[in-house]
Amino acid sequence: MGAATFLQGRLVRRAASLVLALGLWFLPVPAGLTAQSWHLFAIFIATIFAVVAGALPILTASLIGAGAAVLSGTLLPAKAWEGFANGTILLIVSAFLVARAVVKCGLGKRLGYLVVSLFGRSTLGLGYSIFILDAVIAPAFPSNTARSGVLYPVIYSLAQSGGSRPEDGTQKRLGSYLMFCGMASLCLSSGLWLTAMAGNALGVEIARNFGLTITFGSWLVASSVPTLAAFALLPLLLYKIIPPEVKATLDAPPAARQALREMGGLSRDEKWVTGIFVGMVGLWALSGTLHLDSTAVAFLGLGVLLATDVLTLKDIAQEGDVLATFIWFAVLYTLSSQLNELGFMGFLGEQIARGLVGIPWPAVYVVLIVLYVLMHYLFVSQTAHVLALLGVFLDVGAKVGVPVAPLAFGLLFASNYFAVITPQGSSANVIFAGSGYLTQGELYKLGGLVTAFMLVIFLVVGTPWLMLVTR
Amino acid sequence: MGAATFLQGRLVRRAASLVLALGLWFLPVPAGLTAQSWHLFAIFIATIFAVVAGALPILTASLIGAGAAVLSGTLLPAKAWEGFANGTILLIVSAFLVARAVVKCGLGKRLGYLVVSLFGRSTLGLGYSIFILDAVIAPAFPSNTARSGVLYPVIYSLAQSGGSRPEDGTQKRLGSYLMFCGMASLCLSSGLWLTAMAGNALGVEIARNFGLTITFGSWLVASSVPTLAAFALLPLLLYKIIPPEVKATLDAPPAARQALREMGGLSRDEKWVTGIFVGMVGLWALSGTLHLDSTAVAFLGLGVLLATDVLTLKDIAQEGDVLATFIWFAVLYTLSSQLNELGFMGFLGEQIARGLVGIPWPAVYVVLIVLYVLMHYLFVSQTAHVLALLGVFLDVGAKVGVPVAPLAFGLLFASNYFAVITPQGSSANVIFAGSGYLTQGELYKLGGLVTAFMLVIFLVVGTPWLMLVTR
Repeated sequence: MGAATFLQGRLVRRAASLVLALGLWFLPVPAGLTAQSWHLFAIFIATIFAVVAGALPILTASLIGAGAAVLSGTLLPAKAWEGFANGTILLIVSAFLVARAVVKCGLGKRLGYLVVSLFGRSTLGLGYSIFILDAVIAPAFPSNTARSGVLYPVIYSLAQSGGSRPEDGTQKRLGSYLMFCGMASLCLSSGLWLTAMAGNALGVEIARNFGLTITFGSWLVASSVPTLAAFALLPLLLYKIIPPEVKATLDAPPAARQALREMGGLSRDEKWVTGIFVGMVGLWALSGTLHLDSTAVAFLGLGVLLATDVLTLKDIAQEGDVLATFIWFAVLYTLSSQLNELGFMGFLGEQIARGLVGIPWPAVYVVLIVLYVLMHYLFVSQTAHVLALLGVFLDVGAKVGVPVAPLAFGLLFASNYFAVITPQGSSANVIFAGSGYLTQGELYKLGGLVTAFMLVIFLVVGTPWLMLVTR
Repeated sequence: MGAATFLQGRLVRRAASLVLALGLWFLPVPAGLTAQSWHLFAIFIATIFAVVAGALPILTASLIGAGAAVLSGTLLPAKAWEGFANGTILLIVSAFLVARAVVKCGLGKRLGYLVVSLFGRSTLGLGYSIFILDAVIAPAFPSNTARSGVLYPVIYSLAQSGGSRPEDGTQKRLGSYLMFCGMASLCLSSGLWLTAMAGNALGVEIARNFGLTITFGSWLVASSVPTLAAFALLPLLLYKIIPPEVKATLDAPPAARQALREMGGLSRDEKWVTGIFVGMVGLWALSGTLHLDSTAVAFLGLGVLLATDVLTLKDIAQEGDVLATFIWFAVLYTLSSQLNELGFMGFLGEQIARGLVGIPWPAVYVVLIVLYVLMHYLFVSQTAHVLALLGVFLDVGAKVGVPVAPLAFGLLFASNYFAVITPQGSSANVIFAGSGYLTQGELYKLGGLVTAFMLVIFLVVGTPWLMLVTR
């Protein structure tokens, strides 16, 4: 939020966003790029800048950015609205509404008490328990977005039953910390297992073109040490930089056990939600094997929740926030993916690569990974980033003499941990970013810090380990 | 709603929907159709049946229908979510939120008082004034959906300032009547002018293949007499079948004038909304000439409304209803358009056509138009219906010796008035159908009645006139 404190006043920040957009727009188009891709870059950067600088809320900036892109003739309407039909984005929309049902029926509270009764002696313990739960279920989930739909109701319920609610201004009690634990955990667990994120398999295929064969087992061996190091420190780091107001809770586990006793057996609605949710989670986990579409599973589950009256149309009517999240994410997703489709990302990667020729390989190794991570500010999808840049970066590294295996693993792991760099950096973030527990400013600040921390861990701890296991 | 009174109990109605789906699914596939299109037909019909019979709300039925279509392998996920990226549907979503701003800032109330001060001596007068306003602005609007976004805020404000609100259970005071006037008016005004609905120009192109040249002027001459007849009777008919509780309001115009005086000049927010709304309406009207995308105009307008704080993120958070409407309409739109794309609609048209050979032409003329209208129960887009069936029906008519010109005009006008037959029969309906002033049952009942009325007017008054002017 450096930009926000520097630029005083909303109007100044808005003027700066506009000047940035127009300035870039009217700069000469760099050789090798089309005017169209350059203009889209101007609109996209100004949109993100307006959000980061606090000139406009993310929904407002996205609507204006999309309107401008189409009305200026930079994007065709049919291209510009594509994101709204993206299955992953629709999965998030459904997951939001399913989470609502888990909380409303009381099951979320019960799950919350259960987790607290086991790990709740401290908020830090809760943080670690989120990371453990996620790491354990991750290999079964090829979609980290679907996994975010599993974690979110539990975390949301923990926050709510701990008396932490955005509408009361009490998000700092527990919720902000736990929500960011969820986001950070997902980016860590996704990198631990080859099968925990859709883009991993794709990255393995790209690495194969460079003569490297990666299996489920060799991935796990390579990822284990740096991931465990990050895993040990990350909940604690977040505990320091976004301290929850509720900390020591020695009485919490017995109180939670007492509350569980008082709740008695599962209610009718809780039983329905348990059955439907377990069914959805099971089908999500099996979606790869049975070739089931995760979004369709979510639609069906949501339909059944409505049909059983666990969730009502009145409940849905209060979920306008979900509509807002749907709109801004769909728009940013499209702008970024179009930027990629128009060749901008590849062009940028090649420019960077060209500047690295003649530098010793260990320096190139570090620079490539750092730049690869930084470029994720421009992406709203991990898979798109892998698709656009992994090959380019591997190619440069190989040409300059960087050993392919450590570089490939380094970039593949980065493709997971950079997810948290912006709220829209992965679809798995969006449900947490839309929860109301974290401001856009906090999301960018924490995202930047956590990404930097992960980068250091994976460079300092990860590199020697990779050199060892890939010999 | 005959089905609803016949089938007692929600569970029975649900079982019936399921039996219908499975029964159709497992019937032998008719020769000439693919199994895929037949299975999609089974899912679509059962979805619509579940809504009409009151087994499930439209959102619930749509979610389950879409989930079933994808999980059964009938539709590919990418195809199934297409509707969410449809520009027209996104236009409705934006128009809903823009309407919210018009009401919130007080401008809607002011517009309401203004209309009442001029025409408000009776609710019937208000009804007629909606039809007049719409008919006058229609030729400038190639998109009747955009026009629905202009009419809706005025009608919504009239209802609200008349003390008629769904959340209070007072929708029958004024709102139900005025909302349906809006829907009925749009389907009438769209048929009056060649340029008042996107599908009209398309239909004219199709008719050209049968040797018929239709101009802006010749269309208006042909449509004028039956449209004026319907125009004279329709507000009155609706007044009888969906009587508003507030009727004679002789004191209303002076009271409205008094209220306007008390309101004083435009507030800051009203000025912003007026400027932005006039800008949007102007750009919508010019969208054809300037090649501007209507949806992008709406996105930009909505973005500016948010940027000026006229509309806030808190307001959006309360608009979960809009999300629900977005989901069900996008899903039904996709199911219907896929049914069409898979050849089901054309197949059905040809079957009907085949049965008509050998019957005297005046009977064929009537039967073709009636069947063409009834088949709109299967469509969620006027343009798709025109595209799928107009050519087929004209071809049959020509082969059996029906004069082409009256038949073409008869079908073209029907392509406008059948819009109201179901709430999803045209995107222009959706904003009214989602207003909360009319139940799904009322929408289907009134839609059926009004369509039948229009059919009679256009056959009885329209046919002699068409025979006269197309000699």
